[in-house]
Amino acid sequence: MAKSKNSKLKVISLGGLGEIGKNMTVLEYENDMIVIDCGLGFPDDDMLGVDLVIPDVTYLEKNIDKVRGFVLTHGHEDHIGALPYVLKTVNAPVYGTRLTVGILANKLAEHTFTDKPVLNSIEAGDTIKLGVFSIEFVRVNHSIADACAISIKTPLGIVFASGDFKLDLTPVEGKIMDVTRIGEIGNQGVTLLLCESTNVERAGYTPSEKKVGHSLDGILYRFPEQRVIIATFSSNVHRVQQIINASAAHGRKVAVTGRSMINIVKTAIELGYMTVPDGTLIDINEIKRYKDNQLTIITTGSQGEPMSALYRMAFSDHDKVELGPNDLVVISANPIPGNEKLVGKIINELFRKGVKVLYDALADVHVSGHACQEELKLMHALTKPKYFMPVHGEQRHLITHKRLAQEMGMPENHIFVSEIGKVLEIDKDGARFNGMVPSGKILVDGYGVGDVGNIVLRDRRHLAQDGLIVVVATVDIDERAIISGPDIVSRGFVYVRESEQLMDQVRQIARDALEGCLDRDITDWTELKGHVKDDLSKFLYSKTKRKPMILPVVMNV
Amino acid sequence: MAKSKNSKLKVISLGGLGEIGKNMTVLEYENDMIVIDCGLGFPDDDMLGVDLVIPDVTYLEKNIDKVRGFVLTHGHEDHIGALPYVLKTVNAPVYGTRLTVGILANKLAEHTFTDKPVLNSIEAGDTIKLGVFSIEFVRVNHSIADACAISIKTPLGIVFASGDFKLDLTPVEGKIMDVTRIGEIGNQGVTLLLCESTNVERAGYTPSEKKVGHSLDGILYRFPEQRVIIATFSSNVHRVQQIINASAAHGRKVAVTGRSMINIVKTAIELGYMTVPDGTLIDINEIKRYKDNQLTIITTGSQGEPMSALYRMAFSDHDKVELGPNDLVVISANPIPGNEKLVGKIINELFRKGVKVLYDALADVHVSGHACQEELKLMHALTKPKYFMPVHGEQRHLITHKRLAQEMGMPENHIFVSEIGKVLEIDKDGARFNGMVPSGKILVDGYGVGDVGNIVLRDRRHLAQDGLIVVVATVDIDERAIISGPDIVSRGFVYVRESEQLMDQVRQIARDALEGCLDRDITDWTELKGHVKDDLSKFLYSKTKRKPMILPVVMNV
Repeated sequence: MAKSKNSKLKVISLGGLGEIGKNMTVLEYENDMIVIDCGLGFPDDDMLGVDLVIPDVTYLEKNIDKVRGFVLTHGHEDHIGALPYVLKTVNAPVYGTRLTVGILANKLAEHTFTDKPVLNSIEAGDTIKLGVFSIEFVRVNHSIADACAISIKTPLGIVFASGDFKLDLTPVEGKIMDVTRIGEIGNQGVTLLLCESTNVERAGYTPSEKKVGHSLDGILYRFPEQRVIIATFSSNVHRVQQIINASAAHGRKVAVTGRSMINIVKTAIELGYMTVPDGTLIDINEIKRYKDNQLTIITTGSQGEPMSALYRMAFSDHDKVELGPNDLVVISANPIPGNEKLVGKIINELFRKGVKVLYDALADVHVSGHACQEELKLMHALTKPKYFMPVHGEQRHLITHKRLAQEMGMPENHIFVSEIGKVLEIDKDGARFNGMVPSGKILVDGYGVGDVGNIVLRDRRHLAQDGLIVVVATVDIDERAIISGPDIVSRGFVYVRESEQLMDQVRQIARDALEGCLDRDITDWTELKGHVKDDLSKFLYSKTKRKPMILPVVMNV
Repeated sequence: MAKSKNSKLKVISLGGLGEIGKNMTVLEYENDMIVIDCGLGFPDDDMLGVDLVIPDVTYLEKNIDKVRGFVLTHGHEDHIGALPYVLKTVNAPVYGTRLTVGILANKLAEHTFTDKPVLNSIEAGDTIKLGVFSIEFVRVNHSIADACAISIKTPLGIVFASGDFKLDLTPVEGKIMDVTRIGEIGNQGVTLLLCESTNVERAGYTPSEKKVGHSLDGILYRFPEQRVIIATFSSNVHRVQQIINASAAHGRKVAVTGRSMINIVKTAIELGYMTVPDGTLIDINEIKRYKDNQLTIITTGSQGEPMSALYRMAFSDHDKVELGPNDLVVISANPIPGNEKLVGKIINELFRKGVKVLYDALADVHVSGHACQEELKLMHALTKPKYFMPVHGEQRHLITHKRLAQEMGMPENHIFVSEIGKVLEIDKDGARFNGMVPSGKILVDGYGVGDVGNIVLRDRRHLAQDGLIVVVATVDIDERAIISGPDIVSRGFVYVRESEQLMDQVRQIARDALEGCLDRDITDWTELKGHVKDDLSKFLYSKTKRKPMILPVVMNV
């Protein structure tokens, strides 16, 4: 089947291994490459000031002539969010279902491109041809509509990428994961399964999205007099649909607030992914015309994002919605790890306002979009892969997924727990790791892509911890004399007005250090500054047990 | 019963309301004050560089002559941790059970005092007299040994403070919460209940600590060949005891690592709170003499604390313990909200090393130390208080606790959801809020107590977000001429070597701004610096969408 005797298929993830987010996997065979997904990640706590993180795509840039296209599983940020940046240097055609492409188009509109990206809509069930690869999109369920797994026929057999998925036997829109088709593909023989690992630590099955619909309906029934505000992920079109349906059934109008919520609801309605009963949707400006019990408001902010619409409501900073004791806020989401405190902050503020709040622990108002252990086993059972590479997860998830596969009888040496940039090579003799390609994290901060690196972050962490002290002096180096200063400027160290004595000492020590150097004919700037820095550092640590950044600036006239 | 007709009892929390941690409540009656607990809190995410937070005790300092003593419920940081700081200005005698006082003494030894603090050990069941107050310590169960509730007889009836508690009917040391005594006190008539609220969102009962012992025993049985490393809270003496017992039963020696673990185990053994079978405890230096299956290591780091012993083991930085595939690490704790990512980081690193890890989701290796809803109801049922003030919790917990009390039939106007510094006043006519006393957060950073405030934190956040740019120039103001500079120093903004062009532009704009000012005879320093700052700010935001801190330093010769 292979074109030439020694041809190899390479499978390389440029993101999504050993981390949550920025999912991206490259398949390469001779002169053809395709890329599955191209997601962004959120910065770690120590990446101060960083807005988002995208994969390093140097490998694609260097092989730009081989890249036949991007194929997308679904429209979540962690699967498509890096495309606005990556398409600027790797401009290959993009393929995805209509909703995925619609959401992507919205994002791209906020960026400028030399060559306009080419977006192609396909339907679940379609097959496209990109170079040597034949690519079939297979319907799965997930917390966004129109999600697909991707089955790729290569000269070395089928690679099946699950994408993010769950099995929902009562999906909101009536379309169940195409279990039969996945089984047929499995019967054809899958060489390699790439399967997501998000919920691999959870036993059993993830409940159906419909369950949330029932809960929401029950809540509207139990609180007939309150105005109801529901926060959820804007991309969860089916969740929003269920909120609209339940509201309409209880005679409520629905208003939408939050930029991404407004955008996605608009896109979803336009593309026919959402059907709204006539007259149900009203503009947020119209809510004053209705009584509390005639209103549901759908909002962003379910992750506690500062400046999201829910955050602004909680902190009395939303210009259309003022919350009070007759409001019920439902947070229809679980905090993503790391966001617990942000969400908690909003919940506390809502309680303070006397608002009734329903959230995770207190109500069944959310289900996951990812497969739990039994669903993952189903995926393995249907695809019956020869080799398996767990994807989309931290190390703990990938290895737990490996153990799950072993439990199902897969031999350990057929399972490849990879890492970013690592090349999994498959040929007719088998599969093995072989080498690495350039890979890593590119940090996006404002307009800057990649201009914030380790040194900048190290400085930000230092400044964040203990602030800084700038020592400025003008000297006449020939005369060995201080002309002006030293002046001391401090920020983020101590409250200067209450630490005048300390600041006087700092000034004196800086002066002593400078004079000492000049007296000893030390005129090398670096050495001179080094002395000032060391003397001050020692003094400040002994006095305060802190290590502010010390910046000596010495000028010569 | 009241001394004089109009005398009032005041109840004022200086911490622990609307927040987790720094629990501290003052009772005041005429010329007498006592303080229940004096805990510390941990900094919020936006308190950059801050080590810990203690309550503002200005009110006690101003009334120092009235303060009769501190009474402690138990030895956790959030109940005793601020005492080393507070006793420096409010040096009143301290009362607590032996373990509580023993742990406190360890902490005080690291500080210096003008007047040595007076620590008094009492036993659960003891009653002491402080001014007008008669104070009885009543045994409760909690995740630390020797924990008490405190019942205070005042001229206006009994105030019952639950402290942190749970009902453990099979406690490790055989001492069950003194339900009978609490009921007797309830029958005498409790005027005010102060009850903790930590787990008020959880239904049912908290399981017994013994359950963890059974799990640990089962783990040692299932992994007879591995070396076992167990991380838990050092203060959970009973948990540590159970680990020692289970290890001894399986023929394992036990070594202890981590400073606070070593300290507390030592204290607990000395005071007789822990009994170790002869020859079971070995020094960490001796572990090389034993085979893996003969060893259990107890360690700190269950919250993922950077530089804790477990963290150092995971990142190959522990000088005695090197982890490998034959090690089993058990994390016998749940992450405190906010610590999930830190714990996750360690877990991933352990997986990377091939270590087997058991933690929350995967094993029953932890139980809470706090009362769930049914135990809280029991406390209300036993004490039958006239008034109720929920304590120890964020706003959501306090209000949910209020609702729980209402469900049990307490009238709403008998429940007081208070806040820090708010005075709850009780007299023969009833109870009401009346005024505020000084209160708040004091930030501890290194040796500095209170020298980091809002301005310093605001600057640290600014620096953390986008770094800084220092513009230095020397001018001759009389000649309206720039003598030297402007020089640009940047930290935490962009990687300068790759942004030379930008930096050149920055220098030029600073020069233009300065020259423009001098040309227009602007010689006021503030105005001059303001122009430089504004021009640079605008330029940098347009170029980078970032707002670094800009520090113009202009010197005159």
